[in-house]
Amino acid sequence: MNNQHTTTDANGYFSRMLRGETPRPPVLTLLGSRIDAVDVQAGTLSASYEAQPSFRNPAGTVQGGMLSAMLDDLTASLVDATLAAGQGVATLNLNVSFLRPAQVGPLQGEARLLRRGREVCHVAASLLQAGREVATAVAVCKVLTL
Amino acid sequence: MNNQHTTTDANGYFSRMLRGETPRPPVLTLLGSRIDAVDVQAGTLSASYEAQPSFRNPAGTVQGGMLSAMLDDLTASLVDATLAAGQGVATLNLNVSFLRPAQVGPLQGEARLLRRGREVCHVAASLLQAGREVATAVAVCKVLTL
Repeated sequence: MNNQHTTTDANGYFSRMLRGETPRPPVLTLLGSRIDAVDVQAGTLSASYEAQPSFRNPAGTVQGGMLSAMLDDLTASLVDATLAAGQGVATLNLNVSFLRPAQVGPLQGEARLLRRGREVCHVAASLLQAGREVATAVAVCKVLTL
Repeated sequence: MNNQHTTTDANGYFSRMLRGETPRPPVLTLLGSRIDAVDVQAGTLSASYEAQPSFRNPAGTVQGGMLSAMLDDLTASLVDATLAAGQGVATLNLNVSFLRPAQVGPLQGEARLLRRGREVCHVAASLLQAGREVATAVAVCKVLTL
C-alpha cells in the first residue's frame, strides 16, 4: 500500500484488500481490475481494467454490460474505502450512459463521491479508453452493518 | 429455431444468430446466455443465464455489474429481434435496480418492449433466480443503419 492510498479505516475491508490480507474477489480478476489511487478525504478513486476478448458483443466491441461491471466496481470500491471494519456496501441502483464503443484492451476509471451520507452514498464514475470517455455512471449505494 | 421464435426479418442478424448462421458473440458464452423464446408481435423475449464463480464480489454473491451485463443482453437482444437486415442496435443508457443478492448458478430473464420507436426503443427487463426477482432494468436503445 503506497501513500496514494488513504482510506477511512486501516482495519476496514478495503484497506485489508489493498494489503493483500483478504482473498481477491473473483470478479476483480475477471475484469482485470487494479486500484491505482484512492483518497477518501478528496472522495476520489482511480482504477484500471482490462477488457477481454470474451467481453465482445456482436459488433466486436466491448459489451456495455461489461463496462457496467467495471463502473459498478469503481463506485462500490470508493464507498468500500470509506467504511469502518464491520461495514459493507450494497449497490441499490446503477445508471450507466454509453458514450462511445470500447475496444478489447485497457481502460481507465475514475470515481467521485457526490454525497457520502450516513447510510446512503451517491457516487459518479467515468470510464476512459485512450483518453476518451466511453461510459459514465451514477450509483446509489447503501452502507450495511455486517 | 422453434416456433416460439418470431422475429421481424428472417434475414436480420437475430434470426441468423438463432439459426446458428453467424458466430456466437463471445459475451453470450461468458454469460451462459440462451434465448428461450422471442415474440416480436407481443414485444417479449425470455432468456436464461448461468452466473459463474468468476462473477463473485467480495460478499461471495454475483457482482451487480455482471447482472447488468445479463440485463443489457436481454434488452439489446429484444431490440435486435425487431430489426431488419442491415440494421443494428446501440444501447445509450441502462438503468439497473438491484433488489436482492444473486448466487452463482442459473438465472432467468424476461424483456418487454415499452416503446418501439423508429429510431429509439425503450425496453424493460427483469432477472429472476429461483422465482424471485433479483434485478430490473430499463434500457434506452438506438436503432442503427449499418
